[in-house]
Amino acid sequence: MVFDGTSSGAVNGNGVASLPAASTTLYLTPIVHSLSLSKLEMVPHALVAVSAGRVAWVEHLKDRQDPAEAAEKHGIDYEAADKVVVSEGFMCPGFVDTHTHAPQYPNNGLGGSLQLLDWLVELTFPLEQEYDDAAYAAKVYKEVVRRNLAVGTTTACYYGTLHSTTTLLADACAAAGQRALVGRCSMDTGSGTYVEASAEESMATTDLFLQHFDTLPSEAQQLVKPVLTPRFALSCTSQLMADLGKLANERDLAVQTHICENPTEIARVKEVFPAISTYAGVYEAHGLLRKGTILAHGVHLSEAERAVIRRSGAGISHCPGSNTNLNSGAARVLAMLEAGIPVGLGSDCSGGCEMGILPQLRNASTVSRVLAFEGQTARSLSTAELFFLATRGGAELCRWDDVGHFEPGAQFDALWVRPRSPGMWVEGGEAVEMVFEKWLCSGDDRDIGAVWVNGRLVSGASPVEA
Amino acid sequence: MVFDGTSSGAVNGNGVASLPAASTTLYLTPIVHSLSLSKLEMVPHALVAVSAGRVAWVEHLKDRQDPAEAAEKHGIDYEAADKVVVSEGFMCPGFVDTHTHAPQYPNNGLGGSLQLLDWLVELTFPLEQEYDDAAYAAKVYKEVVRRNLAVGTTTACYYGTLHSTTTLLADACAAAGQRALVGRCSMDTGSGTYVEASAEESMATTDLFLQHFDTLPSEAQQLVKPVLTPRFALSCTSQLMADLGKLANERDLAVQTHICENPTEIARVKEVFPAISTYAGVYEAHGLLRKGTILAHGVHLSEAERAVIRRSGAGISHCPGSNTNLNSGAARVLAMLEAGIPVGLGSDCSGGCEMGILPQLRNASTVSRVLAFEGQTARSLSTAELFFLATRGGAELCRWDDVGHFEPGAQFDALWVRPRSPGMWVEGGEAVEMVFEKWLCSGDDRDIGAVWVNGRLVSGASPVEA
Repeated sequence: MVFDGTSSGAVNGNGVASLPAASTTLYLTPIVHSLSLSKLEMVPHALVAVSAGRVAWVEHLKDRQDPAEAAEKHGIDYEAADKVVVSEGFMCPGFVDTHTHAPQYPNNGLGGSLQLLDWLVELTFPLEQEYDDAAYAAKVYKEVVRRNLAVGTTTACYYGTLHSTTTLLADACAAAGQRALVGRCSMDTGSGTYVEASAEESMATTDLFLQHFDTLPSEAQQLVKPVLTPRFALSCTSQLMADLGKLANERDLAVQTHICENPTEIARVKEVFPAISTYAGVYEAHGLLRKGTILAHGVHLSEAERAVIRRSGAGISHCPGSNTNLNSGAARVLAMLEAGIPVGLGSDCSGGCEMGILPQLRNASTVSRVLAFEGQTARSLSTAELFFLATRGGAELCRWDDVGHFEPGAQFDALWVRPRSPGMWVEGGEAVEMVFEKWLCSGDDRDIGAVWVNGRLVSGASPVEA
Repeated sequence: MVFDGTSSGAVNGNGVASLPAASTTLYLTPIVHSLSLSKLEMVPHALVAVSAGRVAWVEHLKDRQDPAEAAEKHGIDYEAADKVVVSEGFMCPGFVDTHTHAPQYPNNGLGGSLQLLDWLVELTFPLEQEYDDAAYAAKVYKEVVRRNLAVGTTTACYYGTLHSTTTLLADACAAAGQRALVGRCSMDTGSGTYVEASAEESMATTDLFLQHFDTLPSEAQQLVKPVLTPRFALSCTSQLMADLGKLANERDLAVQTHICENPTEIARVKEVFPAISTYAGVYEAHGLLRKGTILAHGVHLSEAERAVIRRSGAGISHCPGSNTNLNSGAARVLAMLEAGIPVGLGSDCSGGCEMGILPQLRNASTVSRVLAFEGQTARSLSTAELFFLATRGGAELCRWDDVGHFEPGAQFDALWVRPRSPGMWVEGGEAVEMVFEKWLCSGDDRDIGAVWVNGRLVSGASPVEA
């Protein structure tokens, strides 16, 4: 690994060699990826073969080993192959943002003195109502997707609004090549004028929304999928939740909603659903807790609720920046993991105000460490655990088990990271472990040179193609 | 205030008008600055006059009021004056980093699994020993100052190493025009081979170090000052601390050191100084607690220690990123403020791994909020308090009472902030309050268009001069 821009192959100005395209592309590069929640694999010299958007095989080269020899084992002529030779930095899987509200990005940074329910009424619902304007929606959604790819979010799980213009968000993801779950909010009560007329009308609009995904180009249909999106228990009647739960089960659709974010919200859910003893129980009773259900926040889950969620196969999107910004509280991620619940990270813009997952990885670490300092938890989250949540864990939560890692068969959603931001002090010659640690703690999106989704180059500050 | 690049004056490509220089420069701009710990002033249309590096006067213009009329009150022909017209964003005081280790920046991002004393031995002392090489020191120090100005640190309180090459750090600040306190570490025990031979030798080297500041250009002597730097109680013999305390009092010099960062460190201090009951008491006994003393961390200060510090006039540099990264704990900033202790923020690179003060403002907010969530403190820090710590409070801690605000007589250390980073979603027409809040929560150094120190343009992504 050479950080000074030289390499064994032909190298362009960005420190990455390129050659014309062919059916298999070889990436000669240090890699970092999660094998499991607690196991991070770092390979100083890896030869990764990508074919039809997926990792075909990975060879771990010994120091100074000739990559041609490794390629030959797989019947590939290294010299003649299309390849990308990374001469500085490393590659890692792209980030998975398991919970973020695309229409709210123009409000990022506002509302930090408010709590959830006031924030919804004062800032959020008024902005979302703007999205009945298709031109505005198209403009913002395109920019949200563009910026999220640039900060390394290769997979996003998006909330839209209640409007049918949410199809434009799906279109923006498809056009830019971002992997995404896209949901139109179902909400037939509790939010003033920003509400659907009835559960029936809401379900009819959802049906039209689902049909839109069949109109996407066939390649995009593999990347961009719908997710049923009952906004949260206070935005949906019992009938609407039951109808959505039935649909999710009949068609095995992904589901996303919010849970146990804020004490006032939780108290109100208990008032609205007096016959059900817990917030998680409300979703369970309506058939909404299942594998493929992403529950955002879970700040104040009880042990009993964690058990219910665990049994159902649903998981949690941990949104530490949002939980802090909206004064919701500090989620017990360690308890979720110990209960065996799938967990990913979410930026939750604009509840959270920082874009992308790298800031959320740091926020998750900070919150977790303060809980441990104060004796509230037995320990803090490790770097391996945090990176897993940011990548492979988030992908599993979204039921993309072949995303977020570089094992053979995985979809090649990847970042090329090399130091450019003012926080990154890399002098050359550092081991991949050091550059990786420095980036997680001190770097930013300026250090992302290239972004691939499903083997296709889609973004980056120094984009390179084989 | 116009965000679309148009303005009432001639405007360059960066949205800021410029004219030839003269003795007074007018800045027509929205401003944000702290009047006190709890009072943040935001003026949508201010006319700020800067003369000889200082704010001469500030007029708050009413909406649509002609700036010429305001200038005329002060005998200035607005049309003929040198001026900077800000057509997007706002100006605020530059950040004050009250505690950071210049030689350690190449280690930024490493060591997050360690605690203080192991981190010193394994990572920090080995790196600092490299600074007996003047060429290496000069290279790193120049880059540290350059990058810190770019991230908006107009004033920095730097630790160097024990080497005389720390004068090169002072030179770098002087050359780049950064306001700074620069300290050569005094350390005559407890750090293996990285140690001075005796208290006498250490004091002699300090004397030479102090003399260097008299050799700086006269203008730079106002900006760059020495600070006595007993590394911390475990790095100094009683004699060395007493000698430094005597020198500080005789010559009224600033002092910086560390205090109560980590439980193991505190226990060891008690072992080494068994006759003194507290860590703060050790410094007090050696004459080191006085107005002008900056104590970094204070994570585990007792109420009695806060009282001692308060009476002495010394203050605390709060380093939330470092305290979390090195697993030191969560400092009780609210208790410090309530005790009347001066407090500023410190990046403490490389104990902290993020450069500059904007990330530390966010870290301070997060830690403070989690303490409040968990019932450990009565409330969290407000935005006004956090911004005060980042600017005016930090400057007061460094005994620069005329820095960190825009009141008449203040030194003009300022940032021009306008949205460019991916996190900043500003559509145009937002009030200064909104753009300010968005930047604190969602922006980064890419949004800093220009940086002035003492009225002189020294950095920025879109530098502009009148």
